[in-house]
Amino acid sequence: MLEYAMGWYDENHEPYEKMTGKRLRPSLLLLINEVLGGSWEDALPAATAVELLHNFSLIHDDIQDASEMRHNRLTVWKHWGIPNAINAGDAMFTLAYKALSLLQGSVKDETLISIWKIFNQTNIELTRGQHLDMRFETLAVVEVDDYISMIKGKSAFLLATCAQIGALIAGKEESVSQHLHDFGIAIGIAFQIRDDILGIWGDTHHIGKSTDSDILTKKKSLPILYALKRSNTLRDLYDKESLDETDVAEVVDILNDLDIKEQTETLEKHYYEEALIALEQSKLDPAASQKIMQFVDMLFDRSY
Amino acid sequence: MLEYAMGWYDENHEPYEKMTGKRLRPSLLLLINEVLGGSWEDALPAATAVELLHNFSLIHDDIQDASEMRHNRLTVWKHWGIPNAINAGDAMFTLAYKALSLLQGSVKDETLISIWKIFNQTNIELTRGQHLDMRFETLAVVEVDDYISMIKGKSAFLLATCAQIGALIAGKEESVSQHLHDFGIAIGIAFQIRDDILGIWGDTHHIGKSTDSDILTKKKSLPILYALKRSNTLRDLYDKESLDETDVAEVVDILNDLDIKEQTETLEKHYYEEALIALEQSKLDPAASQKIMQFVDMLFDRSY
Repeated sequence: MLEYAMGWYDENHEPYEKMTGKRLRPSLLLLINEVLGGSWEDALPAATAVELLHNFSLIHDDIQDASEMRHNRLTVWKHWGIPNAINAGDAMFTLAYKALSLLQGSVKDETLISIWKIFNQTNIELTRGQHLDMRFETLAVVEVDDYISMIKGKSAFLLATCAQIGALIAGKEESVSQHLHDFGIAIGIAFQIRDDILGIWGDTHHIGKSTDSDILTKKKSLPILYALKRSNTLRDLYDKESLDETDVAEVVDILNDLDIKEQTETLEKHYYEEALIALEQSKLDPAASQKIMQFVDMLFDRSY
Repeated sequence: MLEYAMGWYDENHEPYEKMTGKRLRPSLLLLINEVLGGSWEDALPAATAVELLHNFSLIHDDIQDASEMRHNRLTVWKHWGIPNAINAGDAMFTLAYKALSLLQGSVKDETLISIWKIFNQTNIELTRGQHLDMRFETLAVVEVDDYISMIKGKSAFLLATCAQIGALIAGKEESVSQHLHDFGIAIGIAFQIRDDILGIWGDTHHIGKSTDSDILTKKKSLPILYALKRSNTLRDLYDKESLDETDVAEVVDILNDLDIKEQTETLEKHYYEEALIALEQSKLDPAASQKIMQFVDMLFDRSY
């Protein structure tokens, strides 16, 4: 189950060749570690840990959201049932900690304990974000600030941890790693806002799920939150038990009429610029900053 | 949800006065730490961690087993739904690690990292045991050795960890703590076998669930595994889709005719004696060993 979830095997335990994940988090961690002068061998246990942690959260998320598909494949629970999927997630969660502990010897014991504590805090943020996400589904109105707080916990914090840990393994002092943490939070929020935009206006084929699905599932993503504030028609639509394809088209029309995409992009841009400021404050040499921003911009240009 | 699961509050967030757990694991950890000359204040973070970890596993177990009641109260998932209960368990899991990290300062950094690694291994064992437990439900025949391996992972290993960590925090060398680990494994297996006996021949009132339930749910506990090997009638009964009260009475008659209780108690005694040997090998002073065995014997004499 774990190998399937990681995308290494298919459900019959045959090697699976297609890409099931971008390995964004370990890439960011390794990149930051490298541009700060660290060696990738030293950072590998931590890179492994953040990817395992991310995949643990996906296994449990898919149960919680009743999602049947991920990366064009059945989800773990859909294949093996909820009890097994819960346990597979718990095992992956544990393996993330085990991977992290393998940093011992590559960093000072004291640094390892600091990294472990950051990892703990990340997981508290993950579950806090997940809790808010589930609670928001039961609320008619969700404020944008609360939504940002949710995505900060659910997705930005782990990116921030990747940046921060990458710096600590490279031997950078707390102040630098803290600015890189702030950079990660801001870029993570911007990244999630982009995801929300793609969830409505993206290209179905590339993201491996219907772009209608955020609307069909009445997901309270940021564009919808903005629009719910301004459109009674939309509120009435979202009061309905469920939406059909005609409703979806109407929702998109409402969003477009209100220039919601532009409004959402403005907030994305705000966080993107906050990220740039935090990166500047971390006072890396220009070549290092440039490489980090090249990586980030590549992610933002993605069509998937 | 977490406070409810810990038994501190009821479902309306009113203080809950009844005892919902024996706090067996932290008690063992603190006792061993104390009789080896440690201070309980130093050990408190670890005692907290093992109790949080145990409660995390109960929250997820109850979902996996579809158990609606625990300690005469609704289970977390029954109250708040499966998605919230999964997340509450994940949060409790994380808090266990966070609690453990608070040992920093009370033990050497190197010792703390050793303890963390033991904790990781414990969780790998927990999920391995849980996996086997779920898989056994789908099998017609389970060998006794496989069953023992399952309970070793699912319940004995955490007790072993309590004993081992208690010793490490008291400053004992690895060899002593390893013998105490072995002691914990053996006593944990004996303890679980006792639980299996109580699950069929125990007193309903004291354990807070029907003693019939292990038979009604066709749980493959040790007495049943022994009897399935020897009784065709029992195998036929366990082939049925479900068992009713008449079947339960018949199962108990079969077990009694085959002296299954005595056979099961013999294996319990075997592990109890193995525990005594491991305790002897750890070469504690006699007063310390005596206090540990007093505690253990109190647990074995429990009528609940």
